[in-house]
Amino acid sequence: MLKVAQVRVLYADTDQMGVVNNVVYLRWFEIGRAEWIRMRGRTYKDIEKTGLMMPVVEAHLKYREPARYDDLIHVETETDDLRAASVKFKYELKRAFDGALLCEGWTQHACLNSEGKVVRFPDALLLMLRP
Amino acid sequence: MLKVAQVRVLYADTDQMGVVNNVVYLRWFEIGRAEWIRMRGRTYKDIEKTGLMMPVVEAHLKYREPARYDDLIHVETETDDLRAASVKFKYELKRAFDGALLCEGWTQHACLNSEGKVVRFPDALLLMLRP
Amino acid sequence: MLKVAQVRVLYADTDQMGVVNNVVYLRWFEIGRAEWIRMRGRTYKDIEKTGLMMPVVEAHLKYREPARYDDLIHVETETDDLRAASVKFKYELKRAFDGALLCEGWTQHACLNSEGKVVRFPDALLLMLRP
Amino acid sequence: MLKVAQVRVLYADTDQMGVVNNVVYLRWFEIGRAEWIRMRGRTYKDIEKTGLMMPVVEAHLKYREPARYDDLIHVETETDDLRAASVKFKYELKRAFDGALLCEGWTQHACLNSEGKVVRFPDALLLMLRP
Repeated sequence: MLKVAQVRVLYADTDQMGVVNNVVYLRWFEIGRAEWIRMRGRTYKDIEKTGLMMPVVEAHLKYREPARYDDLIHVETETDDLRAASVKFKYELKRAFDGALLCEGWTQHACLNSEGKVVRFPDALLLMLRP
Repeated sequence: MLKVAQVRVLYADTDQMGVVNNVVYLRWFEIGRAEWIRMRGRTYKDIEKTGLMMPVVEAHLKYREPARYDDLIHVETETDDLRAASVKFKYELKRAFDGALLCEGWTQHACLNSEGKVVRFPDALLLMLRP
Repeated sequence: MLKVAQVRVLYADTDQMGVVNNVVYLRWFEIGRAEWIRMRGRTYKDIEKTGLMMPVVEAHLKYREPARYDDLIHVETETDDLRAASVKFKYELKRAFDGALLCEGWTQHACLNSEGKVVRFPDALLLMLRP
Repeated sequence: MLKVAQVRVLYADTDQMGVVNNVVYLRWFEIGRAEWIRMRGRTYKDIEKTGLMMPVVEAHLKYREPARYDDLIHVETETDDLRAASVKFKYELKRAFDGALLCEGWTQHACLNSEGKVVRFPDALLLMLRP
């Protein structure tokens, strides 16, 4: 997988167990796919400007080890299972100082037009999204 | 002030200090003004459908006592300082079981049309927003 | 499944697609399991006071239809796959006015003691968590 | 003020008005003070390890112009009004590409010991926090 970003755990991300709350990781997944797309020379913002949307239709998260306040975390991302009108993004979140895997997961995305209908990826987008 | 809602503190709202994180209260302020408007027989959703928006332009929060996980909290709200194109909502958040004041504050709202220009409140809205 | 709570979609829960952002649903899952436990006569807060924690170790979400601002949503929850030291909570989120299924998913929880070691559920907890 | 960090607006930060929701800015304020402290050679994490906490006791936000999806934002921070047992952090959030001021505000912090009592800042901390 490609290391695409690093994030710093905020106090607001922790809960009273003293670790990052489970709801936070989907935010980091978003950072992962946004930066992965940016590394391919596009932005999700530009994709939306062409009238397409790629909403999350399914998500899976496996919490391996707790992330803690002020930890620096590497976000690794890759695409997978690219089809005519859907794509999966996979993620691994690793603690920077020792590389420990904290959370892994994936999100499945549909390709929708501005009316919300499922449509095929245009060729240029298909090329950009290839794993 | 008018008691308009009650909220239950989630685990996700707490931080590693064992109390509700400071960022959460602005969410509860939103609940306060939404339910205050509903009690007046309108909804903010309907107001937006008429082509108006009332974004927050200023906010103030005074944290009095910590809220804790699973606390039930009363949200009290009232309008104040209603003008031709702006209004203030005031909030008090109180712990249900003993009435202790946890947080108080206010948000200032402008009246904007769909192009984002400041406009005067229509008469019906002005009437609805009166303290 | 058991209807355990209803939530109102906040403006802060929406994103610029005009629908509830994918990260929000895990908050509603938390509400589901907290209220399910309360309906069984316990609270998660009390369970933690006995020195046990039940962190989320895995989560799955399937987004069926978008939830929108001010929607009232029913949260339905049930336990499943109860084992000596783990349990799954399943969730269905339905739009109140027509019962449309918006999101379904589950979270897997381990039983940990205060040192973070996996331990067996005490008998009383096992009984409480049975589907 | 000192430029201490830059943040990228996430999709999850926006709301259906197409701009960053008002609740998000307090997260960025936290990033501002955390990175300001890091620039002084300390971390808030280390301060907590000495048995002190600096919770937010008051906050003020003035929203000047909307931040939008994928905007890169500079976070500028400075301390102010340092007293024996309290300090204020001031923040300015500016759009990176044109320097436009998007939001300014401040947070007031008390110095508490591990029992939650207000105590005077130790000399080293007082020196570190000077504007």
